[in-house]
Amino acid sequence: MKKFINDPADLVDELLEGYALAYPDAVTIEEPRIVLNRGLEGADRVAIVSIGGSGHEPCACGYVGDGMLDAFAAGDIFVAPGADETFRAVSLADRGKGVLLVILNHAGDLISGRATVERCAGCGIDVRMVVVQDDISTAPRTDSDNRRGLVGCVPIYKIAGAAAAQGMSLDEVAAIAQRLADQMATLAVGVRGATHPVSGKLLAEFGEDDMEIGMGQHGEEGGGRMRLRSADDTARIMMGSLLADLGITAGEKVLLMVNGMGSTTMMELLLVFRGCMRVLGERSVEAVARKVGNVLTVQEAAGFQINLIRMDDELASLWNAPSSAPFFTVRSGS
Amino acid sequence: MKKFINDPADLVDELLEGYALAYPDAVTIEEPRIVLNRGLEGADRVAIVSIGGSGHEPCACGYVGDGMLDAFAAGDIFVAPGADETFRAVSLADRGKGVLLVILNHAGDLISGRATVERCAGCGIDVRMVVVQDDISTAPRTDSDNRRGLVGCVPIYKIAGAAAAQGMSLDEVAAIAQRLADQMATLAVGVRGATHPVSGKLLAEFGEDDMEIGMGQHGEEGGGRMRLRSADDTARIMMGSLLADLGITAGEKVLLMVNGMGSTTMMELLLVFRGCMRVLGERSVEAVARKVGNVLTVQEAAGFQINLIRMDDELASLWNAPSSAPFFTVRSGS
Repeated sequence: MKKFINDPADLVDELLEGYALAYPDAVTIEEPRIVLNRGLEGADRVAIVSIGGSGHEPCACGYVGDGMLDAFAAGDIFVAPGADETFRAVSLADRGKGVLLVILNHAGDLISGRATVERCAGCGIDVRMVVVQDDISTAPRTDSDNRRGLVGCVPIYKIAGAAAAQGMSLDEVAAIAQRLADQMATLAVGVRGATHPVSGKLLAEFGEDDMEIGMGQHGEEGGGRMRLRSADDTARIMMGSLLADLGITAGEKVLLMVNGMGSTTMMELLLVFRGCMRVLGERSVEAVARKVGNVLTVQEAAGFQINLIRMDDELASLWNAPSSAPFFTVRSGS
Repeated sequence: MKKFINDPADLVDELLEGYALAYPDAVTIEEPRIVLNRGLEGADRVAIVSIGGSGHEPCACGYVGDGMLDAFAAGDIFVAPGADETFRAVSLADRGKGVLLVILNHAGDLISGRATVERCAGCGIDVRMVVVQDDISTAPRTDSDNRRGLVGCVPIYKIAGAAAAQGMSLDEVAAIAQRLADQMATLAVGVRGATHPVSGKLLAEFGEDDMEIGMGQHGEEGGGRMRLRSADDTARIMMGSLLADLGITAGEKVLLMVNGMGSTTMMELLLVFRGCMRVLGERSVEAVARKVGNVLTVQEAAGFQINLIRMDDELASLWNAPSSAPFFTVRSGS
């Protein structure tokens, strides 16, 4: 393993410290391992909180800021933080207007989220939980509780954060977040696995010419192993599955995001994005919200995720609203 | 080579098309391969233009936008565009107030830049050229014309772009850009080479435990091959060289940027940034401008560049000024 680290035991604390040093105007780090939005001071609105394992940077420390996340509780590498840490993040973020807690559908995250919701009920913090379960490769839509959470969390952070910034109530913010979660689909493809930065173990193995469609965030297999295709062909295969899953038809509006998982180049991501846009064009579907880049990584894994969301004018307007999060800055609404 | 591409002959045109599709509000693509700032329409100020080979995305297409670059002429993979393309980019960007042309010190870029300056003299476009020669591993400071251009171009784009947006004259903008170029130092370290996306050739080779300090942007050797060190030790070695090169002493202010070259994780970059900040702290040097991320990549190369610039209050204020460039958005001045 060729990684620039120090003592593996200090990895998460050091990366959070590094983040706070790089963006001191945006965040502070609170014990234990909570990235807190500096803009919370004096705020009088709903707060947005999320949790997750580390090793996926810039997700989600990079999305803490005005107009997006207010607190993020970071776990060990690829491991969710516990219920105590999650509760503390919610407590720190709450301004008395309630908290939306965004949880990715993985066992540990869900346990910490549910325990936090129970605990909040006992101490007067109004909290609603939305579960991100966007991976269409892991279960059919009719069994969406068995769908894993992937990069679809990030549009929820952005859009719910904008709704909170505009002064909506917790009921309204939670309803928007749930509407998004219900209307999204994500599919991943992997071509090279990452190494775990603590154990040094390879997280997934691929033949020299193989790619796997449906690969989970930590290298979990999805069953779609095939020979490496071109950018256009891969985009076409994956978009077909995503559009079918959502039942998107001509005239509809969508969000299209292509997320690099680590070492797939921006050059490739731009080609894939172009390929996806061509598929949308052929089907007369309009992309009213677009993003490409390394949004949620899996260390140095090679591959990408395509996230597609059925949009409406309200959601598109919130997507374009201002944000001060260092890795998702939006200058002004459009 | 496991890359998602289509016909290699179409690579650059397709990546630019993908970029314009992803950020249609920010840019248009003009023939041949020029990324143009949409905000130029109606602008009445100095324009900022740069050129460079492709394959380094998000540099520099991602930095075209109000408050940063107005036009970027893209060449083939790792090859500078010609003089015709460079002249056309300058012509398209010029609003009658003159153009600052930012050129990285590589043979092809310099030839195109100089030819463009000559041609502009003959047709009434006021143009000034600033050459980025920040790689301290390639020549001593006394022989800076033989220093290669690395990621130091990006702070010049940002700060010169802000100066132009504030209505400064071409003389003033050019003087600020030259002051920056004169006061910067960059050093790279590589641990894994990239493959050329057209030829499939590996650009640099490393032993299993080797790293190389002073690696150029395309894998050129710098002579500093050694065993892989920790994040802290690597930061310390490199910062020592950079501080010595610039003669930075206690009480001075600097810009510190850690740029990932492709597949080095954000996690590692944050650890390295932390290590660099500790060195600055020990020396009582203040980082008044900070950035970490994949700013200028070399395909999927693993490694990073540290860029250090002697700063003053004017430069820091321009660094923090608003920018609409999709990959360097700044919401508001601070």
